[in-house]
Amino acid sequence: MYSVEELQQIINREIELRSKELIEKPPFELYIPVKYALEMGGKRLRPVLLLLSYNLFSDEILNALPAALAIEVFHNFTLLHDDIMDKADVRRNQSTVHKNFGENNAILSGDAMAFLSYRFLMESKSERLVDVANLFTLTAIEVCEGQQYDMDFESLMKVTEAEYLEMIRLKTAVLLACSLKTGALLANVNENVASLLYSFGINLGLAFQLQDDLLDTFGDKKMFGKKIGGDILANKKTFLLTKALGMTSKVQLNELTKWLNKKEFNPEEKILAVTKIYNEIGIKELTKRKIEYYFNESSQTLQEIPIDDYKKQQLILIGKQMLNRNH
Amino acid sequence: MYSVEELQQIINREIELRSKELIEKPPFELYIPVKYALEMGGKRLRPVLLLLSYNLFSDEILNALPAALAIEVFHNFTLLHDDIMDKADVRRNQSTVHKNFGENNAILSGDAMAFLSYRFLMESKSERLVDVANLFTLTAIEVCEGQQYDMDFESLMKVTEAEYLEMIRLKTAVLLACSLKTGALLANVNENVASLLYSFGINLGLAFQLQDDLLDTFGDKKMFGKKIGGDILANKKTFLLTKALGMTSKVQLNELTKWLNKKEFNPEEKILAVTKIYNEIGIKELTKRKIEYYFNESSQTLQEIPIDDYKKQQLILIGKQMLNRNH
Repeated sequence: MYSVEELQQIINREIELRSKELIEKPPFELYIPVKYALEMGGKRLRPVLLLLSYNLFSDEILNALPAALAIEVFHNFTLLHDDIMDKADVRRNQSTVHKNFGENNAILSGDAMAFLSYRFLMESKSERLVDVANLFTLTAIEVCEGQQYDMDFESLMKVTEAEYLEMIRLKTAVLLACSLKTGALLANVNENVASLLYSFGINLGLAFQLQDDLLDTFGDKKMFGKKIGGDILANKKTFLLTKALGMTSKVQLNELTKWLNKKEFNPEEKILAVTKIYNEIGIKELTKRKIEYYFNESSQTLQEIPIDDYKKQQLILIGKQMLNRNH
Repeated sequence: MYSVEELQQIINREIELRSKELIEKPPFELYIPVKYALEMGGKRLRPVLLLLSYNLFSDEILNALPAALAIEVFHNFTLLHDDIMDKADVRRNQSTVHKNFGENNAILSGDAMAFLSYRFLMESKSERLVDVANLFTLTAIEVCEGQQYDMDFESLMKVTEAEYLEMIRLKTAVLLACSLKTGALLANVNENVASLLYSFGINLGLAFQLQDDLLDTFGDKKMFGKKIGGDILANKKTFLLTKALGMTSKVQLNELTKWLNKKEFNPEEKILAVTKIYNEIGIKELTKRKIEYYFNESSQTLQEIPIDDYKKQQLILIGKQMLNRNH
């Protein structure tokens, strides 16, 4: 089997090659932002999962490369349009596409990426191509639904845990699950095994997003790679806040609500105050337990998949990497 | 064969039904704008062409209905995102989606429509489904390219006739051609015949867009359905302006450039002045001849298609309707 690092190199080379091809013909104003978006970097998690999943059943991983590219192009399309909607000017320490090329160009180059992702996907040589395309389409629609819920939550005071989990399932988990299942479908394994990989991906994806929520408040700045407390400053309805709003005493709720409604504040002060309430309720441990729960669920699903132990270990390994547990 | 009016009714019923289904489940904020966009109306030209093309070879037109719906959803997706980019507040006498639901929702609901169009397309029962999906994807990318050229032209003083024609081929003609070819592919006719229908669509599409340009300046307000002179006021690089800029005398060019550069002006005065220059150069007749040329090209392509004369007449008829020639 290929290692995660090898797969990352393979997908990075492919992205570089295909991005270069894209800007060889006009309209350049359409394709330069696409190349820019694709080359902003990132861990290439989704294509790596797709290739890894394919690699469980076949060594000819180049067959799965167009689909892996498609998933990454789609993912970057969602980031591009989300950044416009969130008015986010910076991503991975670089100007976002709309900041750099203007909003109209960002909308249109994003649209082009959505269709390019289908072009790449349809390059796959597979008996299951229609199944693959249907899964991809279903997933894309779900990701839009997840983004909608995320936007809706901004203006809601109360979001239940179940609503929150459904939102991150749609916004984050289904694409990871789709990546894994697509790899399996391309390797032409039976539907049952492909579905197990999908379930593995959903549970891992939920754990992954909860971990992201956790690290945004309780992470180590250096390891997390972005500023701590951003979610708190933006009143983002994370698992932490959602949970806290349902568990606070009346005094804590008043304090929390006061900070949520403040228009002017010292950022450090707000982060400290909200984190203090989180600590009083024990949100950190609660979130950790939830992450543990979904990680264990994913591991259990894995046991049902008819592959040898070494391969299972590789999936566990990438799961641990995703959750920043290098132990 | 079904008449154009019957096909319009069939597609309108289908849009109504499917729109209603869409808003039966959340997130409503995502799907209500989709329904709104789909129900803004229009002539349903592209799905009608698809159904008509299918109907040339088969009477079971319901088989082609999901693909017809897909094409219409895609077309409305492009209108939705184009209206954001153009900051257009009104379409067909109604508020545009971004005006009504906000820009973020318009971006996201538009994205959802792009993927919904694939969902509908992939419902088609056909041996040629992969060919159909590939044509759809290629076309979607070309439409984005066309929109990009259209935006690029705004800031260019000089656009050649060839550049202009390539822009409208991409922005308008390929989707009409794709509709016709998709109908043929779904009816499982051979590639040669399907390609002839594609060529018919390209030529008709070019004539159609040129006619639209012509009517915007020289049309009858009542028949055209929108205000006359809008393109002139917006300095839109239509065929008329592109052609005029390459044919004016020095005096006329100065006058035209003066009006193009004016920031403040009386709208009626500008329309009159620019139209006067167009009249001096004979732009109207020139454009009419060009329309005639592409219409004849489309009719000639039609002669090569192995269908009976009655069916050919139906295609000519819808072509004439598209060009507002009811004679």
